Amino acid sequence: MRFAVEASLTYDFAGPCEVLLLVEAAHGPDQVVHSEALTFWPNVDAVRVDDPVTFERRTVFTASGQVNALYRAEVEVMLRDHDLTDAPAMAVRDLPSEVLPFLRASRYSPSDRLERFVDREFEGLEGGRKVQAILDWIAAHLDYRAGVSDAATTAIDTLVDRAGVCRDFTHLVIGLCRAANIPARAVSAYAWRLEPPDLHAIAEVYLGGRWRLIDATGLAPIDGLVRVATGRDAADIAFMTIFGKATLVEQSFSIGKIG
Amino acid sequence: MRFAVEASLTYDFAGPCEVLLLVEAAHGPDQVVHSEALTFWPNVDAVRVDDPVTFERRTVFTASGQVNALYRAEVEVMLRDHDLTDAPAMAVRDLPSEVLPFLRASRYSPSDRLERFVDREFEGLEGGRKVQAILDWIAAHLDYRAGVSDAATTAIDTLVDRAGVCRDFTHLVIGLCRAANIPARAVSAYAWRLEPPDLHAIAEVYLGGRWRLIDATGLAPIDGLVRVATGRDAADIAFMTIFGKATLVEQSFSIGKIG
Amino acid sequence: MRFAVEASLTYDFAGPCEVLLLVEAAHGPDQVVHSEALTFWPNVDAVRVDDPVTFERRTVFTASGQVNALYRAEVEVMLRDHDLTDAPAMAVRDLPSEVLPFLRASRYSPSDRLERFVDREFEGLEGGRKVQAILDWIAAHLDYRAGVSDAATTAIDTLVDRAGVCRDFTHLVIGLCRAANIPARAVSAYAWRLEPPDLHAIAEVYLGGRWRLIDATGLAPIDGLVRVATGRDAADIAFMTIFGKATLVEQSFSIGKIG
Amino acid sequence: MRFAVEASLTYDFAGPCEVLLLVEAAHGPDQVVHSEALTFWPNVDAVRVDDPVTFERRTVFTASGQVNALYRAEVEVMLRDHDLTDAPAMAVRDLPSEVLPFLRASRYSPSDRLERFVDREFEGLEGGRKVQAILDWIAAHLDYRAGVSDAATTAIDTLVDRAGVCRDFTHLVIGLCRAANIPARAVSAYAWRLEPPDLHAIAEVYLGGRWRLIDATGLAPIDGLVRVATGRDAADIAFMTIFGKATLVEQSFSIGKIG
Repeated sequence: MRFAVEASLTYDFAGPCEVLLLVEAAHGPDQVVHSEALTFWPNVDAVRVDDPVTFERRTVFTASGQVNALYRAEVEVMLRDHDLTDAPAMAVRDLPSEVLPFLRASRYSPSDRLERFVDREFEGLEGGRKVQAILDWIAAHLDYRAGVSDAATTAIDTLVDRAGVCRDFTHLVIGLCRAANIPARAVSAYAWRLEPPDLHAIAEVYLGGRWRLIDATGLAPIDGLVRVATGRDAADIAFMTIFGKATLVEQSFSIGKIG
Repeated sequence: MRFAVEASLTYDFAGPCEVLLLVEAAHGPDQVVHSEALTFWPNVDAVRVDDPVTFERRTVFTASGQVNALYRAEVEVMLRDHDLTDAPAMAVRDLPSEVLPFLRASRYSPSDRLERFVDREFEGLEGGRKVQAILDWIAAHLDYRAGVSDAATTAIDTLVDRAGVCRDFTHLVIGLCRAANIPARAVSAYAWRLEPPDLHAIAEVYLGGRWRLIDATGLAPIDGLVRVATGRDAADIAFMTIFGKATLVEQSFSIGKIG
Repeated sequence: MRFAVEASLTYDFAGPCEVLLLVEAAHGPDQVVHSEALTFWPNVDAVRVDDPVTFERRTVFTASGQVNALYRAEVEVMLRDHDLTDAPAMAVRDLPSEVLPFLRASRYSPSDRLERFVDREFEGLEGGRKVQAILDWIAAHLDYRAGVSDAATTAIDTLVDRAGVCRDFTHLVIGLCRAANIPARAVSAYAWRLEPPDLHAIAEVYLGGRWRLIDATGLAPIDGLVRVATGRDAADIAFMTIFGKATLVEQSFSIGKIG
Repeated sequence: MRFAVEASLTYDFAGPCEVLLLVEAAHGPDQVVHSEALTFWPNVDAVRVDDPVTFERRTVFTASGQVNALYRAEVEVMLRDHDLTDAPAMAVRDLPSEVLPFLRASRYSPSDRLERFVDREFEGLEGGRKVQAILDWIAAHLDYRAGVSDAATTAIDTLVDRAGVCRDFTHLVIGLCRAANIPARAVSAYAWRLEPPDLHAIAEVYLGGRWRLIDATGLAPIDGLVRVATGRDAADIAFMTIFGKATLVEQSFSIGKIG
């Protein structure tokens, strides 16, 4: 499927400060970016700091005063999994070097604290079946609700609170998968049919030799996800990191199917 | 300076389980490994999963029953900084792609929670001078003491507890540097003259275009550090990660100067 | 000094629910309530559950729909300490039975975690001098600022965040005093000259045979405090605890000097 | 039933320090102490600080060097509930003044964080049935295991860890009950048939006009519990609080049935 995506971000920056922007569609094996443009108004001094391993595309710019960043792209999405059931678990020895870090505990997905829970609750399952059981558990025990969590909320908090938003669901599924020795990471994505439109936080797990996107919230179809940034958890994939002070003026994300 | 290092680890593994071993000296621009050998007794099935970016060297093996892993190497150490004062801060735009993640909050160094403290306590300083002020603050306010911290202790805990071991000192200095927008990461190292001998946890900061080792504990001379693993914090650099169950039988680390 | 105080609270209660109200001036040895009235509009079924030990005055009512609770009183304030310097520390054996619990860790003032910090930072001081040193430290290291803390923020968080509101300052001073073996508790009070007018959270410490009010924020004069509720921390002194659901319509607190 | 209980505590105290001892059987409506003696060897200067509300009996003594405290009593236990099913919930307005604090969040039972979980998991139940459902949930989802928790472990940690010892089970059941608006508190007790013998941590809930002991671990029969201290959580009921430094030499607790 092919999608047109757009992000429009207007902020008022106090003094010249650097900004790391993660809103561009990743260039990688599971999606093709047919055309795209990132423009600033007024113009700013911007450089690319793309990541060759994750295919994540990053722009750093220096801004002062009110600036609008506008990103538009046409992206073709491929290779999304609808069913993980038969995706096999992998031995640690068979994991590529760059996948190993995604077995580790991170800021918002402290998987070291979830091992006992995972052992007790999901014993005897392997690979895709285990991931599916974790997704089912989350669907049965968590409510999708705004206002419960904030920027400091971890997977541990969400396991206790039993509610949160996409970011929280993602942190919990990542934490539980890692505790089960399944590499897992966070992804931001334009999400077709997500209501209200926003940059969606989802997870992906490494099974059977490749990363596979999963959405613990079930709010958006998997094959309507246009991947943007990739990281250990939300600490890595914020669409904008401001090294200084700024005020939000307006921001919007949109995605539409083409053809 | 040239050092002979040795790690000897004997564990009793319950059932066949995979083990990730991080005890080998890194191969990189700041140290040369002249000779080395990693042997297992009895022999095990082992594979290498080295990291081309950090030069970290990793072995994954599958073990069952009692196994001894013995690592020996001769390593020449170069390029250690004794004085960071003049090391310049870097703009985010000038950071290499692979350095960016080390600005982010991690499991044990949740730098997002330390920004206000850093702003208040180290205002007006930049680059190496700021790092030095952070090291001075830690030296003045923390006691090196075992028994205060455990495997779950974070930089936040250590800031409150005002005591800990090398791992805790490292997490705090990393968290404070990141909160000051200075990339920082954790390193494990054989440490000459460290008493008692152990694999030491230290930090490094990215200033003036390269990583520079710092030891917030002041327990070992910087030019006696033979670097091993590198990561966001202790979650990444554990010398042994056992994907299963095992009992420690005996372990020791040693380092001696040659010539 | 004599004060006229008023609290007016209007809430919309969903379904009949019980409400515990703590807005009435305490009747005790350090203040005299000359006249007072608590009225509800429309009228509700209310009972008193006063505490004979703390002199705290409590009303429980059952409400449904929109209800206004209006409290008005004239209170004469006595026995406020301007200088704690010479207030002597007390042996545990000399503490009255009802004071002992205020040496214990509580929800928002987990003093067990602050012992090392207190030992290191305030060593060698006793009694009122120690309390004063703690107040001075807080004044030097914390910023009074809204938006940093929320209902879950503890003294540990505030020690790290270095900022908060009156509730947070109070939790930290209580935690530090208890860690120094000085009984400390939380008090809510109408606070003359507090801007903007609100129910203020302050602390009190038990020294030299009686409780003495202290205000770590320094925002209101000590002899303008009309005490209301008393407890281990903010968990105990909330001015309204709703056992059900309700929406705030309007609320205000005021205090004025008479004569 | 009638029991002989004994506690023998030997510590080496560094310098003269005060000690609060909570090992004596409570004098109250649900148990009669027929005979008892608390002796120290060598003798120390001790005073009583009994609590008239909870019937908790407290001794504060000043010690230096090695001291043995020996407590022996014969206690008749009455009024233990085997079945809470029909114990009715109470309106807040009907709670005695001294029961209200046990609805509040405390250090180790931060019930404010458990409300959503309780609403979701135990909806529609009231009073004794709700308490029983909470006990059943704990029995089904927690493992009794040493080494998982420590002195800082809260009910939140235990809900995540899914394991702990009697203290942790007690904190969780208390937290869940309070979140359900049922007053709950912690009790220490000599526990007949507990293996190995120790001072047991249990909970009690206020239903139908009186406190009722419950044991979330199920390790000891309810009518074999000789109650000692009472408080909000373990912060209040430690059998020994040392205001200074000491080393444990030997300690033991025992209980035997008489007749």
